[in-house]
Amino acid sequence: MKSHRKELWFNVPTRRAYINITREVEEAVEESGVREGLVLVNAMHISASVFINDDESGLHHDFEVFLERLAPHEPVGQYRHNDTGEDNADAHIKRQVFGREVVVSITDGRLDFGPWEQIFYGEFDGGRRKRVLVKVIGE
Amino acid sequence: MKSHRKELWFNVPTRRAYINITREVEEAVEESGVREGLVLVNAMHISASVFINDDESGLHHDFEVFLERLAPHEPVGQYRHNDTGEDNADAHIKRQVFGREVVVSITDGRLDFGPWEQIFYGEFDGGRRKRVLVKVIGE
Amino acid sequence: MKSHRKELWFNVPTRRAYINITREVEEAVEESGVREGLVLVNAMHISASVFINDDESGLHHDFEVFLERLAPHEPVGQYRHNDTGEDNADAHIKRQVFGREVVVSITDGRLDFGPWEQIFYGEFDGGRRKRVLVKVIGE
Repeated sequence: MKSHRKELWFNVPTRRAYINITREVEEAVEESGVREGLVLVNAMHISASVFINDDESGLHHDFEVFLERLAPHEPVGQYRHNDTGEDNADAHIKRQVFGREVVVSITDGRLDFGPWEQIFYGEFDGGRRKRVLVKVIGE
Repeated sequence: MKSHRKELWFNVPTRRAYINITREVEEAVEESGVREGLVLVNAMHISASVFINDDESGLHHDFEVFLERLAPHEPVGQYRHNDTGEDNADAHIKRQVFGREVVVSITDGRLDFGPWEQIFYGEFDGGRRKRVLVKVIGE
Repeated sequence: MKSHRKELWFNVPTRRAYINITREVEEAVEESGVREGLVLVNAMHISASVFINDDESGLHHDFEVFLERLAPHEPVGQYRHNDTGEDNADAHIKRQVFGREVVVSITDGRLDFGPWEQIFYGEFDGGRRKRVLVKVIGE
């Protein structure tokens, strides 16, 4: 069994953003030499998500409206977590809704995707350096 | 390490449905010959989900009410994604809430499940042919 | 390829709770002898979650408020599932939002985590014995 590990780094200037990382994950799979296996892609921070959906800016706007309606950033005092001095309780909740990770099949050395699947890093508490882990296993 | 790949095809006549695919996944595991490993089951389309919950029709009605309240299909003009000519922004959001994939343990050649776990394909934008990927790895 | 399986048992006296199980998962990884691989951690019951987030009691309070607002336990008659004699439809829905499972990378024999990642068992329908499955695969 082969394995390969790679970190992707981000420093998003805005509080929230959706960044397409499909190409970076494909590169990690190519580097691994794995032809048949699985790749795990996960946020290493608990106020961010990795998910698979459409690379369409209107939809990303809809995601933003949806998540802000579910768990608004302000007023920050509505969350007990923010009594610790943080202001990112909403980001922890948004990450719960959108998920931490994806696992993707590798077939014939490539991401085994449907026609529109793209991998995104969902940042909900930007303005600092944060990481995504890519872990490939297989043969 | 063994691996096995299978596609399940659906053409749901209604816009939304929850379809039990546990037996099809079990068959893919049996075909693989894997005794110890993992099976990934994921929607290959970004307006559908794969998830594990109860095979009880009342609960599926409750899921329907819950998801329509969170992200209603209509009016379709409330979503910017639908400015592209699509009418399925709600389906992309519902899929985010219910998730893309499940990973299930294989032990002694079988799905390693608790008493009530069943795997479902959640269709949120039916009326056309769509696929689920089953990928088995192990030994 | 090595594999290792372990069950964690819970009997939460309250209806809902968030229990840090990171140490138990680390122990299972150590027992497995796997140095490079993946560990799947999933609820074996469909009214509970396994997820990764912050070990901060204020945030857990915020999770509680969030989930009760999305899918309130009472009145139990609002859910068709509860016509079966159950009163846990809300727990099935909360589990959908928070997810069934996590998959974590194992690198150098350890959970490959960011600085704050901790694994939680989320109980949404306590008062009875329930299980989490830990499955390790790798080399």
